[in-house]
Amino acid sequence: MFEKVALIGIGLIGSSIARAIKEKNLADHIAISTRSQKTLDRAKELGLGDSYNIDPTEVVRDADLVIICAPVGAYEAIGKQIAPHLKTGAILSDVGSVKEHVVKALEPHVPDGVHFIPGHPIAGTENSGPEAGFASLFDGKWCILTPIEGTDQDALHRLRDLWVAFGSDVEILDAKHHDMVLAITSHVPHLIAYNIVGTADHLESVTKSEVIKFSAGGFRDFTRIAASDPEMWRDVFLTNREAVMEMLGRFSEDLSMLQRAVRFGDGEMLEELFTRTRNIRRSIIDAGQETDVPDFGRHVSAVEDESGA
Amino acid sequence: MFEKVALIGIGLIGSSIARAIKEKNLADHIAISTRSQKTLDRAKELGLGDSYNIDPTEVVRDADLVIICAPVGAYEAIGKQIAPHLKTGAILSDVGSVKEHVVKALEPHVPDGVHFIPGHPIAGTENSGPEAGFASLFDGKWCILTPIEGTDQDALHRLRDLWVAFGSDVEILDAKHHDMVLAITSHVPHLIAYNIVGTADHLESVTKSEVIKFSAGGFRDFTRIAASDPEMWRDVFLTNREAVMEMLGRFSEDLSMLQRAVRFGDGEMLEELFTRTRNIRRSIIDAGQETDVPDFGRHVSAVEDESGA
Repeated sequence: MFEKVALIGIGLIGSSIARAIKEKNLADHIAISTRSQKTLDRAKELGLGDSYNIDPTEVVRDADLVIICAPVGAYEAIGKQIAPHLKTGAILSDVGSVKEHVVKALEPHVPDGVHFIPGHPIAGTENSGPEAGFASLFDGKWCILTPIEGTDQDALHRLRDLWVAFGSDVEILDAKHHDMVLAITSHVPHLIAYNIVGTADHLESVTKSEVIKFSAGGFRDFTRIAASDPEMWRDVFLTNREAVMEMLGRFSEDLSMLQRAVRFGDGEMLEELFTRTRNIRRSIIDAGQETDVPDFGRHVSAVEDESGA
Repeated sequence: MFEKVALIGIGLIGSSIARAIKEKNLADHIAISTRSQKTLDRAKELGLGDSYNIDPTEVVRDADLVIICAPVGAYEAIGKQIAPHLKTGAILSDVGSVKEHVVKALEPHVPDGVHFIPGHPIAGTENSGPEAGFASLFDGKWCILTPIEGTDQDALHRLRDLWVAFGSDVEILDAKHHDMVLAITSHVPHLIAYNIVGTADHLESVTKSEVIKFSAGGFRDFTRIAASDPEMWRDVFLTNREAVMEMLGRFSEDLSMLQRAVRFGDGEMLEELFTRTRNIRRSIIDAGQETDVPDFGRHVSAVEDESGA
């Protein structure tokens, strides 16, 4: 599919792309660069690529596809650095969780003849680093591409076909709209999860050991996304401020209403909301985006562990 | 262990207790009552008990253990109704998610010679009804007992031993403190989950189908607990108002701080919080209260499904 793919950044997403390309034999050569020598050495040990270089300008040379898989705060510097070394006809893409900022940070540096197509796979786990990736991460998940005006359709199709080969469904969205959709489906949920875990960590009336012991009451569900990569998520909130503030405002208004219902004992309002929210989970399961096994299947695994022991 | 156990309410928790008692042969007779004839018939079809009666006064007769497994809003009426029919020496317990209210609602009706010991297993799934239960639900989970002053120690030990036989660890807490601990580990997390799902359902700028499609970005984690039983959770918020308001106040203060950090681009504050919250998940996993499989093991199930297909 591609002759040489260059990956800049080799964490959870970058290493999953490398593994998926290898497993499905989608490129002749995978060249890997990342800012830390230690991570680069680890990628080499894991055999994720065919060549490794701490200098990104070296790996992008002759690459017909370059995918930036670093925290979005690093994009502008990477873009400036690699731009003069990109091959004419190459596709430059990324996997960042925000897209309007990415366009602003990279587009000015992209040379004529290079096809810049931002992308964002809606997939991940709470683990990070090159060990955390796996080839099937994108399978059955959506990948959003946010091409800018005048994008070459052949290049767009080539990139789309790569994600389809990974098992993803591809959706084309406007960058600004992407950022609004992700603010509610991903960014604000992360902020809220980080916040409640932080709140629980700060209490005087309830000890931390009690929070940990009795977390199966619901709290532990929040800790999964509150264990996501800190640097990546810092950059998301720094670069999608407007949409996050808008959605967070909605969330807070609704929470004030709910708080009022609790204060005044409005059982009808509470039950009406709690009934409505059930249906959304059902829709997500029907859309194949969630498991229908109770408790995310944790009980199933526990039972399996037992029988295996 | 017991001659006759009476269960009033046969949903997720009640039916799991029935199954665990049967599987481990902990009682000679299980008598089941519930307010809806349809649910009672379903329990009978599933073979959950040995006798069934829509009238709770009938099932508690001669029972040496009575466990109320109904939404806490129904406790007072149940207590008044069954009190004159309780056997001297019987233990009266429950599984409700709030405890101070339960003591207030039931204690005045408990006749002399009956041992009233409130309980709360910290276990559950998002599913409800008699079909949803399973015998291993309490295995490896905590069960909190909140005995009132002067509780008979033999009765307390008998009840504790039952939960231990289910595989639970038992903790003794003061009712008021229980309500504070559960407000942060369970009630506020549920309120927040219900709220974000409600907010997403109301947006005009993002369609519901986009929310569903791209829910794997984090939102879907919240939908699990937002799919919990509406009536049960309505009653939790109506009866643990004070502790919920206190913890919700803390959460909102912290969220305002975080919102301010986003507005002013305080990356350092964000990264510090996001790093700290990771450790709490690690502690919960180390305490055996959470799986360490990434993404709650959803990926593992997906892979298994594939190989099985």
